Amino acid sequence: IRRILRTVCTPYCLFNCCVQLFGCSAAAQVKTSRETKGQFLSVNMAFSVGVMSAMYLTKGITGAHLNPAVSLSFCVLGQVQWGRLVPYCLSQLLGAYVASALVYLVYYDAIMDFSGGDLTVYGPNETASIFATYPSEYMTLGRSFLDQVVGTGMLMLCILCLGEKRNTPAPAELIPPIVAVIVLGISMSMSGNCGAAINPARDLGPRLFTLTAGWGTEVFTCYDYWFWVPLVAPPIGGVMGTFMYLIFIEWHLPDPDQPDNDSALSISETIKQPGPTWEKDVELKSSHF
Amino acid sequence: IRRILRTVCTPYCLFNCCVQLFGCSAAAQVKTSRETKGQFLSVNMAFSVGVMSAMYLTKGITGAHLNPAVSLSFCVLGQVQWGRLVPYCLSQLLGAYVASALVYLVYYDAIMDFSGGDLTVYGPNETASIFATYPSEYMTLGRSFLDQVVGTGMLMLCILCLGEKRNTPAPAELIPPIVAVIVLGISMSMSGNCGAAINPARDLGPRLFTLTAGWGTEVFTCYDYWFWVPLVAPPIGGVMGTFMYLIFIEWHLPDPDQPDNDSALSISETIKQPGPTWEKDVELKSSHF
Amino acid sequence: IRRILRTVCTPYCLFNCCVQLFGCSAAAQVKTSRETKGQFLSVNMAFSVGVMSAMYLTKGITGAHLNPAVSLSFCVLGQVQWGRLVPYCLSQLLGAYVASALVYLVYYDAIMDFSGGDLTVYGPNETASIFATYPSEYMTLGRSFLDQVVGTGMLMLCILCLGEKRNTPAPAELIPPIVAVIVLGISMSMSGNCGAAINPARDLGPRLFTLTAGWGTEVFTCYDYWFWVPLVAPPIGGVMGTFMYLIFIEWHLPDPDQPDNDSALSISETIKQPGPTWEKDVELKSSHF
Amino acid sequence: IRRILRTVCTPYCLFNCCVQLFGCSAAAQVKTSRETKGQFLSVNMAFSVGVMSAMYLTKGITGAHLNPAVSLSFCVLGQVQWGRLVPYCLSQLLGAYVASALVYLVYYDAIMDFSGGDLTVYGPNETASIFATYPSEYMTLGRSFLDQVVGTGMLMLCILCLGEKRNTPAPAELIPPIVAVIVLGISMSMSGNCGAAINPARDLGPRLFTLTAGWGTEVFTCYDYWFWVPLVAPPIGGVMGTFMYLIFIEWHLPDPDQPDNDSALSISETIKQPGPTWEKDVELKSSHF
Repeated sequence: IRRILRTVCTPYCLFNCCVQLFGCSAAAQVKTSRETKGQFLSVNMAFSVGVMSAMYLTKGITGAHLNPAVSLSFCVLGQVQWGRLVPYCLSQLLGAYVASALVYLVYYDAIMDFSGGDLTVYGPNETASIFATYPSEYMTLGRSFLDQVVGTGMLMLCILCLGEKRNTPAPAELIPPIVAVIVLGISMSMSGNCGAAINPARDLGPRLFTLTAGWGTEVFTCYDYWFWVPLVAPPIGGVMGTFMYLIFIEWHLPDPDQPDNDSALSISETIKQPGPTWEKDVELKSSHF
Repeated sequence: IRRILRTVCTPYCLFNCCVQLFGCSAAAQVKTSRETKGQFLSVNMAFSVGVMSAMYLTKGITGAHLNPAVSLSFCVLGQVQWGRLVPYCLSQLLGAYVASALVYLVYYDAIMDFSGGDLTVYGPNETASIFATYPSEYMTLGRSFLDQVVGTGMLMLCILCLGEKRNTPAPAELIPPIVAVIVLGISMSMSGNCGAAINPARDLGPRLFTLTAGWGTEVFTCYDYWFWVPLVAPPIGGVMGTFMYLIFIEWHLPDPDQPDNDSALSISETIKQPGPTWEKDVELKSSHF
Repeated sequence: IRRILRTVCTPYCLFNCCVQLFGCSAAAQVKTSRETKGQFLSVNMAFSVGVMSAMYLTKGITGAHLNPAVSLSFCVLGQVQWGRLVPYCLSQLLGAYVASALVYLVYYDAIMDFSGGDLTVYGPNETASIFATYPSEYMTLGRSFLDQVVGTGMLMLCILCLGEKRNTPAPAELIPPIVAVIVLGISMSMSGNCGAAINPARDLGPRLFTLTAGWGTEVFTCYDYWFWVPLVAPPIGGVMGTFMYLIFIEWHLPDPDQPDNDSALSISETIKQPGPTWEKDVELKSSHF
Repeated sequence: IRRILRTVCTPYCLFNCCVQLFGCSAAAQVKTSRETKGQFLSVNMAFSVGVMSAMYLTKGITGAHLNPAVSLSFCVLGQVQWGRLVPYCLSQLLGAYVASALVYLVYYDAIMDFSGGDLTVYGPNETASIFATYPSEYMTLGRSFLDQVVGTGMLMLCILCLGEKRNTPAPAELIPPIVAVIVLGISMSMSGNCGAAINPARDLGPRLFTLTAGWGTEVFTCYDYWFWVPLVAPPIGGVMGTFMYLIFIEWHLPDPDQPDNDSALSISETIKQPGPTWEKDVELKSSHF
């Protein structure tokens, strides 16, 4: 037990801590400087750099479960034991909480100066959106839900293919920056509606922090108790993206000619391939664009 | 037949779906937030990330035909059978259509809020340009045509060289991000006139979607039936770029010293080299800048 | 002695000179053009490119000690002899000073035109911030200190893991751009409060230059003698980040199965591993996200 | 003769044509859209993408002489025969001229709409700066000269080290994007004064085109016949940067332990090493930051 706690908590915690530290700091910097020291794009980019750094920091130890939605998808794929899912998620949540506290400490003066000391969720001087995500005013609940499902689905679909040797594998040592670019793409294209949390821990951790740090219960009650959307929708989206990957890509790949000696990079071993195998098409493969 | 349909439709469809999903979502985000959640550059970057992700997703299966103009060029080069061109293009078109529908679903509230519920092609609250491309007001028809020819030509010229082992090959595993950067470059430099479609499927798919989703026939009739330009010009530009590549680069490369054992990366085998071969110039090659 | 001076001074000097030349020039360009020829993000990016270029220039010779805070951390890790710390730092300082002088020469006309010939530290036409860093007006001293500690800690934590073969190593030849991206991330997320110096030499060198070039003693006395913060806090932060890396990552890594033949890439040899070793967890490693 | 003409003209021409096509198109797009379809940073990035694409297109054939200043430096280093310098430069000039003409054709409508049909060098509607570079109003002649010398020196210093195996070599297949990032860095930090031509061909080719296309002789006479600065200063800067590289880096590198079998990547063979050799410092090299 202690061993699992130690090996699980530490790096998972650190992973989300690192992502959150880069991302929320950038959000604080852009917000409190009223966009004079960065812009919306900076925040997207900083989250992306955080993902890259966090993956280099912990991928060798933990397998770099980006977030609870990704961990759940790996449970569904049979690559992670179900019993580990809850401690993983709690560690990820703890990391996000700690990072939020650190960002608050570092940007305390700036936040106080910006908000005039009044920590609110609404209005031009709101600062809650530095930490957790909130929907745009025009959003309906169902639309928010769809937005999170699609965003997380895109994430899973795009990262699952990177290690597949029978497709176009990315170089193993460069997977962190490539995943970072994908995250950047998603946050540039899917954050218009409700901030592209696509990660329950990334959203709940900071929200709990703002609850305890003085923003009040409004962080949970605002927008008609909207807070549950980025908790529930991303896991659903992640699993749906995983199945889409299996259906549209994985099951069309040819059987491996030679046994893979680096099983860490292949998903296929753990999954029964029910469908007909894909006929290798030489002319198709002879062109590579 | 069924086999070809399955192997062709699925990944091609997915490829364009992925590109379109990133790109059009970013366009929707930037447009409906009135550039507060991103800017013109974000849209370019999101399309570029979409291309990278789509290539990692499907390149191993399909050879990653970026778009019908690229597929046609490969037919001309003799690398793809002519009979496959039409089903490829239809799949690409279908993918673009499906992605547009998904973007519309996700950004429905935002689009309604931005446009006041009035889906138009002209005016400050127009939303049609989120999906398909439209020319600037000052453009003449011939100029639009030239713009698309030049843009697609640049694309083909720049991507054909990446896999050539006798020149400066890009690492095979990193071709997706490099192609993505080239697409980014083209959309930063060639979208001033009419939006750098350089892809018939990327333009017609969303345009058909907007026709069916409430923008009306104006999406086709506007700007004096301009819609045919991004359908006709990119294939012509792609083929011209291919021939420029053959004339200026390919035929100047030295004969391969050793037979290539990875024929997938070389174009030269399928083409007769009519011109005189290029004399290898040791001093020249000894400097590499 | 002469030999050490030559081998130490030249590349260290050059390293900081290169970083500063890119970064401060970009700051001068953005400032004097009143953000018409670039923006806050450009300055961040230019510093980042400077780090990449400087690492390619000198890493093979010096081991690319990014800054005195990093050098101190390596002394603490036992990888650099303590006696070399002072000459290293002085060389880094000299490089930053020389680069500032060069930037001043190149942008002299622009600075004079922008400031009206009045070189000041405060006010809308201040130009001192092109060279050294200054805090935002609302910052307290303690908060500035924390800001620098956290920023430098993030830097050390993120770069120490890049070469660790038992974790997820970055490709050795691509470490310069990856470190550059990390520096970009830190300057996008941690420069809101006081400019993310995270480097005593990068801050003191230019500050000394501005003292001698006509900005007067105000560059040291302003903001209640704030100048000592970026001198004292980054080394503390760097050492703290190093220990966090050791505690949370390094000591959890498995014992190396085979003896490393490339000891340059591993930190572990020089450190006794007091804690219990980490049990390799096959299921965890079998998934890599 | 014919053979040299063919091998020299074609790829050199194409190289500069490609760079110019990306860069000047982006400048046209940003300028004529009054920064609504891009910004200053887009132009920098497009030039950078152009450099990358051009290097992948032609580096295998020509050694990718970026510009006449770089070619001259290679002559000085003894790697290129002096007799080839003039045809190289003329080809580079021709490529830049042709690309400018193509950009003019593609953006003709936009330029006419923006300028009201009046092609001028001065004023708010000037369009000459789309093609060639012009100094800021406050610049003195000597300062412009220094600016170009420093910019080109930085370029040479930063790119010469990339292929040196005894230092930190960049991966040969990824040198094009790395050089592109360096060019991006220089254009973000050194274009405030007079546009960072750092390339005689890139400046004279478009200037000749604007002379012939209707901007009149003012493109040469304006700013007191300023046009000679980007012709004369970059070669001087390039040679100075090369010597700085030799003095500060190359002569400090250790003697190669084993004979290089890939002489294309090493500069050292062609240069006598007069100075004392550098003593390899094991502790230094054991840390790699």
